[in-house]
Amino acid sequence: MPKLWNETIEAHRRTVHDAILDATVELVGERGLLAVTMSQIAEKTGIGRATLYKYFPDVETILLAWHNRQVAGHLERLARAGERESDAGRRLEAMLETYALIHRQMAGHGFSPDLVTLLHRSHDAGHARQQLHAMLRDALADAARAGVIRDDLAADELATFCLHALQAAAALPSEAAVQRLVGLTLAGLRAR
Amino acid sequence: MPKLWNETIEAHRRTVHDAILDATVELVGERGLLAVTMSQIAEKTGIGRATLYKYFPDVETILLAWHNRQVAGHLERLARAGERESDAGRRLEAMLETYALIHRQMAGHGFSPDLVTLLHRSHDAGHARQQLHAMLRDALADAARAGVIRDDLAADELATFCLHALQAAAALPSEAAVQRLVGLTLAGLRAR
Repeated sequence: MPKLWNETIEAHRRTVHDAILDATVELVGERGLLAVTMSQIAEKTGIGRATLYKYFPDVETILLAWHNRQVAGHLERLARAGERESDAGRRLEAMLETYALIHRQMAGHGFSPDLVTLLHRSHDAGHARQQLHAMLRDALADAARAGVIRDDLAADELATFCLHALQAAAALPSEAAVQRLVGLTLAGLRAR
Repeated sequence: MPKLWNETIEAHRRTVHDAILDATVELVGERGLLAVTMSQIAEKTGIGRATLYKYFPDVETILLAWHNRQVAGHLERLARAGERESDAGRRLEAMLETYALIHRQMAGHGFSPDLVTLLHRSHDAGHARQQLHAMLRDALADAARAGVIRDDLAADELATFCLHALQAAAALPSEAAVQRLVGLTLAGLRAR
């Protein structure tokens, strides 16, 4: 087959794949994890059940694929937030703010604790957490070298502090409160 | 029955109750939540199965009772840590440090994510979180009034920040690292 044809098939597969993920998350959000069946997902996606099974074996696997797509999107958004700034201090600030806002948005999904446990237990989730930690650690090390934040503590520990502190964003009522949270976290990083 | 006799019975019930909780947590730690049966718990506690069922209907209820006992102990430990200090700044510092150390110790239990989800979902757990938040919020408000920490942010938001930031203690490798985490958190609170 010519290359162009292969690319068309690949694009079609990708579209169906993504539509399945979106339909599943919508159904799980409405009905809860245990109430959703493969038949409902096929119907909502607008494909046959047999086709659905060519893509995914069960609901759990679809949700994990959706979660991996989300996480990849978040990591990319964080990396982009950092890239836009050339100054080490402002780069760090942009990344912290983006991470906090992502957390606040995720809380809005209103997933059940069971589902969150399922998603976070996956192998890929552990890998993403390491990537996130490394990305932030590097930004912190750059900022410390530039003299914008304290250099008396290991960047690794500072990253652990930031990641936990900013998770508080999920419990905050407004974007203004998220900004204040980022300010508090930065104040800890800047103090000597 | 004379009062003394009732007290003896009550003390005996309490001893058996606590022994059941301890045996269960030990078994779950060794074998995992799903592998533990009521018979194993009765045997490990050194009581009959019929007696065990007079205390608890199932394993899940025992674990929730154990968790409530732990949480009550933690809240008491936090309150005591605060009471020992008359100065508002040192009281806050003692509470933050105690909370961080409790988190580090809890991580050592090595419970599975399923079990943690089960325990945190309970009604009592939500109530305990509110108590914890209120306790810390009051200590922060006192410290702000005493001029030891910033007074430009609501004590409620500062409490949310502290509680999340200090949960990082669970991921830290040493008590010295926990002390540095408390220092970072306090630095955020002190900055203006």
